[in-house]
Amino acid sequence: MRTQLTALREKMRERGIDIYIVPAADFHESEYAGDYFACSKYLTGFTGSAGTAVVTLEEAGLWTDGRYFLQAETQLADSGFTLCRMGEKGVPTISAYMEEKLPEGGTIGFDGRVINAAFGRTLAGIAEKKNGRLHTNEDLVGLIWTDRPALSCSKAWILKENYSGESTASKLRKIREVMAEKGVSMHVVTCLDDIAWILNLRGSDVRHCPLLFSYLILTRKGCLLYIQEASVDEEVRAYLAENGVTIQPYDSIYAFADALSARSVGKVLMNAKTVNYRLYEAIAKGSEIVDEVNPSQCMKACKNATEVQNIRNAHIKDGVALVKWLKWLKENVGTEPMTEISIADKLAECRAAQENFIDLSFDTICGYEAHGAIIHYGATQESNVPVEAKGLLLVDSGGHYLEGSTDITRTIVLGPVTEEQKKMFTLVLKGHFALASAKFPRGVTDMNLDVLAKKPLWDLGLDYRHGTGHGVGYLLNIHEGPNSFRWKLLPNAEPAVLTEGMITSDEPGYYEDGVFGIRHEDELLVVPAEETAYGEFLQFENLTYCPFDLAGIDTSLLDASEKKAINAYHEHIYRTLAPFLTKEEQLWLRYETREI
Amino acid sequence: MRTQLTALREKMRERGIDIYIVPAADFHESEYAGDYFACSKYLTGFTGSAGTAVVTLEEAGLWTDGRYFLQAETQLADSGFTLCRMGEKGVPTISAYMEEKLPEGGTIGFDGRVINAAFGRTLAGIAEKKNGRLHTNEDLVGLIWTDRPALSCSKAWILKENYSGESTASKLRKIREVMAEKGVSMHVVTCLDDIAWILNLRGSDVRHCPLLFSYLILTRKGCLLYIQEASVDEEVRAYLAENGVTIQPYDSIYAFADALSARSVGKVLMNAKTVNYRLYEAIAKGSEIVDEVNPSQCMKACKNATEVQNIRNAHIKDGVALVKWLKWLKENVGTEPMTEISIADKLAECRAAQENFIDLSFDTICGYEAHGAIIHYGATQESNVPVEAKGLLLVDSGGHYLEGSTDITRTIVLGPVTEEQKKMFTLVLKGHFALASAKFPRGVTDMNLDVLAKKPLWDLGLDYRHGTGHGVGYLLNIHEGPNSFRWKLLPNAEPAVLTEGMITSDEPGYYEDGVFGIRHEDELLVVPAEETAYGEFLQFENLTYCPFDLAGIDTSLLDASEKKAINAYHEHIYRTLAPFLTKEEQLWLRYETREI
Repeated sequence: MRTQLTALREKMRERGIDIYIVPAADFHESEYAGDYFACSKYLTGFTGSAGTAVVTLEEAGLWTDGRYFLQAETQLADSGFTLCRMGEKGVPTISAYMEEKLPEGGTIGFDGRVINAAFGRTLAGIAEKKNGRLHTNEDLVGLIWTDRPALSCSKAWILKENYSGESTASKLRKIREVMAEKGVSMHVVTCLDDIAWILNLRGSDVRHCPLLFSYLILTRKGCLLYIQEASVDEEVRAYLAENGVTIQPYDSIYAFADALSARSVGKVLMNAKTVNYRLYEAIAKGSEIVDEVNPSQCMKACKNATEVQNIRNAHIKDGVALVKWLKWLKENVGTEPMTEISIADKLAECRAAQENFIDLSFDTICGYEAHGAIIHYGATQESNVPVEAKGLLLVDSGGHYLEGSTDITRTIVLGPVTEEQKKMFTLVLKGHFALASAKFPRGVTDMNLDVLAKKPLWDLGLDYRHGTGHGVGYLLNIHEGPNSFRWKLLPNAEPAVLTEGMITSDEPGYYEDGVFGIRHEDELLVVPAEETAYGEFLQFENLTYCPFDLAGIDTSLLDASEKKAINAYHEHIYRTLAPFLTKEEQLWLRYETREI
Repeated sequence: MRTQLTALREKMRERGIDIYIVPAADFHESEYAGDYFACSKYLTGFTGSAGTAVVTLEEAGLWTDGRYFLQAETQLADSGFTLCRMGEKGVPTISAYMEEKLPEGGTIGFDGRVINAAFGRTLAGIAEKKNGRLHTNEDLVGLIWTDRPALSCSKAWILKENYSGESTASKLRKIREVMAEKGVSMHVVTCLDDIAWILNLRGSDVRHCPLLFSYLILTRKGCLLYIQEASVDEEVRAYLAENGVTIQPYDSIYAFADALSARSVGKVLMNAKTVNYRLYEAIAKGSEIVDEVNPSQCMKACKNATEVQNIRNAHIKDGVALVKWLKWLKENVGTEPMTEISIADKLAECRAAQENFIDLSFDTICGYEAHGAIIHYGATQESNVPVEAKGLLLVDSGGHYLEGSTDITRTIVLGPVTEEQKKMFTLVLKGHFALASAKFPRGVTDMNLDVLAKKPLWDLGLDYRHGTGHGVGYLLNIHEGPNSFRWKLLPNAEPAVLTEGMITSDEPGYYEDGVFGIRHEDELLVVPAEETAYGEFLQFENLTYCPFDLAGIDTSLLDASEKKAINAYHEHIYRTLAPFLTKEEQLWLRYETREI
């Protein structure tokens, strides 16, 4: 890593750049960037999905969040990079650090395509304060990275209406209605999942994300799709033409934007938090910008009736796969040799055997004992450990099916566990069910309910360093906005009103560094509850069908209503899955879902 | 009321005004306006503290919130005014209504001194859209109101430092530090409680609010206090002079502001939500405005150590008064004749007997049976009813002492009650204790915790139409910002981070219109809990010392931890109050605080 750092600093010196920033980002603010975009990993050796390297001529830091502290600590050893734990006391934000370090008249450098416009403007502000400047038109890591992987280019395919539930024509019409309301003549969409949702197209350009590298320019009549030519076959080309979508070469968007900067096209709707700095600035030069969230974000978050019915089926298939795998695991651990990787592979096999399975929805997290405490652990050949008939195994996994995507975590008791582990297993489960059982009036936001999941831990001065839940896409990104469960209002973010059709994960956890980790995750669909004199009430339908390991529960910590909720959930699982299981599997599941 | 409406419309016609707005407000955006400002009451007959009359040449409406729906319905009968239930489906906001009703080129009228600048600017925007204009320099109701009461003018007195805990010099220094940080050269303070807090002055210009009609103009060196001359005696005059405060006649603030409009004084810090439209516009004409909340708001919300210690003592005295009164009530109801008013009077007597008692902190709400469902009920000679040895009595009351202010609600079981009443009494109490027992990391806001109080009702599709709690002032306003407990983010408001020293009421309720009402209210002080690996945790100290009526509790609805919390609270009350009670009172309280 030290070689890369030296090479980067040489390029910086040549250009008079004082601070260079390298995020782990693609051109689209995707959460998971492809190998082509792994510039910060190339520089630092840190493999987590969220890390930003900041390099001055003397110092080098990597900023990441609580999910990755343990992993980054290990991976950064000897890299020349210091770990900067975001959100911890005394750790400056990237902006604050840069403002401190940038010399008067200095230059901040970054590739303008991998930094969003909002952050780019913050950096421009810092440079301005110091009477300095930005250098944004070069990818310095690209210049030194000789064996860089190619940009992936998968085949686009059409998601039929019996899966999507709404035609592209209808989606385009709705978005244009919003454009008309706002008086905008152009809308720039660069979020890959928004584009995939609008066009009912899928691909596999990003690992475990069925998306296509593309940009979409939508006007009141026209629609330009910037996409790699090789991704589009005759069928897709014809389908797009039918929908009035014109195909353009992927990279030519910048030439289009530069040309646009010379003339105004009226008001343009685009979101500075998702459109990259280079594109945004070029378009903003000539036009008035309406900087708002893409209308498609909220539309796709509220799943339609077809999607909801499909997703229920996807979860049943997922549940069948999980039960078969759990039975194998519980019956064979301790006798058959197993490792974290072999267990994850077996689970992938069980999912792949299901009809219409497409891919895992993310890299399986299979963490045994101490590895369970690494929130986003990914077992590697080096870290992989044998799994025995004792302790806790945390498995967070999911699948993409034509019928939608799943995301589930179970913490499995493989044999003897400590009283402390049972206590924490149970407290986390109490929080999980408290949130899952909530009923609330229309208008309540994701910020209002988080305390239900956190309370059992907060009562003891304990916590977990991640949000309680995230929105889930339909055969799109497994993390999807605007809904989530959290108590902190993110900077510049609005709380999301919980609305029918939204799907959010409910995944509280507890982690003892170096000892064990616990997380219980289901997916919750917002559905109507009842209308009373006090207005409309909503509640959650639990979409996940997989038992919680009863061996982990200390029933003395549960009250009657909690036991009832767990029993009802388990009974529902048994009844739903039994028809798809063998007699032997049924017997096994019947016991695993027994009343407590 | 119809006479007033006719007279007002005549004045409107003379001036070519199409819509005239009359809020129940003084010149300071105080929550409770004095009799002089009861213009909307004069017009409509509605006596609630929050009601805005909107009069066109054909229609007349009164907008009020959920607390007052029942009361307004009764009082508006035959007034010529329609009740507009704010927040209910299909009821337009005042702005939306005005935008619909204002004719092209029409005129909106209001007294610019009783509408805040933010709302005034919204109204100006509506007029502009219709190519119309504003008429804001006349008080039309004042013109027709012949027997209007005089503006009250009480004697100012100094709150000594052993009560305030901080000198005026220190408070002025802190505010000037904030001014310097923000680069503002002038700060306009018009909130009466902020002025009283800054100057450590009290008075009684507003019923039950120990405040003085005044405006404060603060510069980096100087300080002008606009106040009625007769309020200030020699002692106060000398005290103010010592602190560098110059006295000006109350009304002359407008001449000062108009003079200011001709020259810029640099940046001026003032809050458009609290400074009135007339003053704000005059000052904004010549200067750049920094429109932010008064720095004093957050300073006074976090009570200092002296205030906290005093407030604890105020609550002990209040508790002694309440226990004496409760014992009298419970022992004599059914034998001695009583009414809502006589019971409230007896309570006032018990409070007045306490040392350093100054005033009630608001008009006592003493609502028997069906009256308990009127959230802000005030018994009048007409509404007053005899109270018998059955059913529920809801009493929401408080006192101002030199040691601080109290606000408490108890729902008292006077004899047989229904199972339904006991159930609701218990569910509301569960919510009350869930919130009071919360422990949470630093950073949590008032919006995050509200669900704890609401959950037992929401689970049944029930609710109450008021916030769960409000900040409480120290011998100032009984409703004080920025802290509260609520789940809705108010428009343009930020959630308030719960910080040490903040005092917030915890008062969930349940109301069955025409049948009964239940509310349980204590005051909660934010205090440190512990520091763990997960950061600093905070919790609440319950400041209120008065038992909840055990006769109202259905113990089968409580779990063990809830019983424990109630028992601990009652034990704490007994031990704290016993030394101040007679033997007989001790025996009575011992039984009322028995273990359940």
